[in-house]
Amino acid sequence: MHQRVYIQEVAPRDGLQIEERFVPTADKIALIDALSGTGVAKIEATSFTSPKAIPNLADAGEVMAGITRHDNVDYVALVPNERGVERALAAGADELNLVMSASDSHGLANLRMTPWQSLARFPAMIEQARGREVFINASISTAFGCPFDGEVSAERVIDIVERLTALGIRGVSLCDTTGMANPAQVGSLCEQVLTRWPELSITLHVHNTRGMGLANVLAAWQAGVTRFDAALGGLGGCPFAPGASGNVCTEDMVHMFEAMGVDTGVDLDALLAVSATLPELVGHDVPGQVVKAGRSSRRYPLPEHVRQS
Amino acid sequence: MHQRVYIQEVAPRDGLQIEERFVPTADKIALIDALSGTGVAKIEATSFTSPKAIPNLADAGEVMAGITRHDNVDYVALVPNERGVERALAAGADELNLVMSASDSHGLANLRMTPWQSLARFPAMIEQARGREVFINASISTAFGCPFDGEVSAERVIDIVERLTALGIRGVSLCDTTGMANPAQVGSLCEQVLTRWPELSITLHVHNTRGMGLANVLAAWQAGVTRFDAALGGLGGCPFAPGASGNVCTEDMVHMFEAMGVDTGVDLDALLAVSATLPELVGHDVPGQVVKAGRSSRRYPLPEHVRQS
Repeated sequence: MHQRVYIQEVAPRDGLQIEERFVPTADKIALIDALSGTGVAKIEATSFTSPKAIPNLADAGEVMAGITRHDNVDYVALVPNERGVERALAAGADELNLVMSASDSHGLANLRMTPWQSLARFPAMIEQARGREVFINASISTAFGCPFDGEVSAERVIDIVERLTALGIRGVSLCDTTGMANPAQVGSLCEQVLTRWPELSITLHVHNTRGMGLANVLAAWQAGVTRFDAALGGLGGCPFAPGASGNVCTEDMVHMFEAMGVDTGVDLDALLAVSATLPELVGHDVPGQVVKAGRSSRRYPLPEHVRQS
Repeated sequence: MHQRVYIQEVAPRDGLQIEERFVPTADKIALIDALSGTGVAKIEATSFTSPKAIPNLADAGEVMAGITRHDNVDYVALVPNERGVERALAAGADELNLVMSASDSHGLANLRMTPWQSLARFPAMIEQARGREVFINASISTAFGCPFDGEVSAERVIDIVERLTALGIRGVSLCDTTGMANPAQVGSLCEQVLTRWPELSITLHVHNTRGMGLANVLAAWQAGVTRFDAALGGLGGCPFAPGASGNVCTEDMVHMFEAMGVDTGVDLDALLAVSATLPELVGHDVPGQVVKAGRSSRRYPLPEHVRQS
């Protein structure tokens, strides 16, 4: 098990896209700039998608132009199609995150494409980026289950990873888009993928919809995964699980790893300070727990009756 | 790793004791009766403690007298002292749960006894139960950390387990009373205890204060633990972590195990139905997530635009 993991912050994209209110561009930039100073390895800053599909991220270009970049942080843009690639390249993204679904119905619902249609479009998108200094990652949504189709087999996901690597893609995210994964499944799939493609950069992206977020992170880490997406405060969510929790919470995940003696590269106090600004930014309480309870190492004063005895 | 685990419900005791309102005796009895039909192995029904210390459980005797017992469920009573043992025996508890702390300050704060003073009192309490058909378990609070003293070493906990087994005790609960444990620590301590005392019945009791509840359960299960305390709805809490979550949530834990293919003996639908009654019972929302999001296997209808295409 690896003693260094890499934290990839997705709140500005996966978190803010589902909020009820549009977070002003200047506030998004301030959030990303604050996150840049915490030691996270990557920040998924925005999505270059249709403003009609995701109005909350209609300011993608302005956000990318407004942030102050740190040398040791990669700024990622999610791109659903060729137009997205064009805009993300123009904005100078360090990484393009191509997105597809593992399941037919989720692909059709979310992208209006089956997995095979998505895969057929990726070569043109990759071609657009040729010669540019940009890393290409592909995210496989519903890799652990689909809210419409139900079970998604490991064989299907491995088939997709095979096709992605054949396109020259060197980074793949296994995404539990609607929080359906369990630790046995996560451990098994991650182990199979890592065994077959030891050189591939694998990211686990999980939601905490059914409370298994950190358990799934633990299982993936035990299987050898070292890159984890998470959203500050546990922002995010899923339109198919109203009332449920969002992405696994960045600071709770960092806290767990640090408590276990695993280096995250992140300054947890700095991260907690940024998280504490979220309720005002989004206008509601957020699910993150460490920001409320304090670290495990927090000490309390002795009760009066003990001090007197 | 074991494919059968035993679920020990503690909401009636560890959950209700910290609620702001006194739950009427009849409602407590109804809750325990409903839980008895779900397949949980044990129910910690109440605590025979001073009504001044825990007014919410002042009706311990009436609760024990009022419940309808199921043959395959053990009804547990927490007992802090000789008076508690006497009352619990009179009430016909199937199991006495003796409680002590691993740390000096928590013991003094909670029980007005150091661990060593607790251990000195246990022989008299065990003697009281001699000849009675009652199982004796000992709970070690703050086994993974103390909110006053900080770290609690594994050596200290193992020393305590050694002393408990020397008293003839055959069941020990390792309790993360204030949610300080992390999975590496849980896995390591459980493995050490199970290796040294393979015949001992070990229970893991964790709180979800910092979001690590199910990750800690997973780590303990991987180490060979098969008995888990949990509270319906994630009730419970800790006076030292205001605003934080309570015990690990029974139905979320059962859901995780079942999704992993581990038999819990519990009818999850029945358990979820009981959990759905909690907000009205306690007067507030509760942390459990599966009751809100539904099981992982939940299916959603296809969106209109997909059905039409």
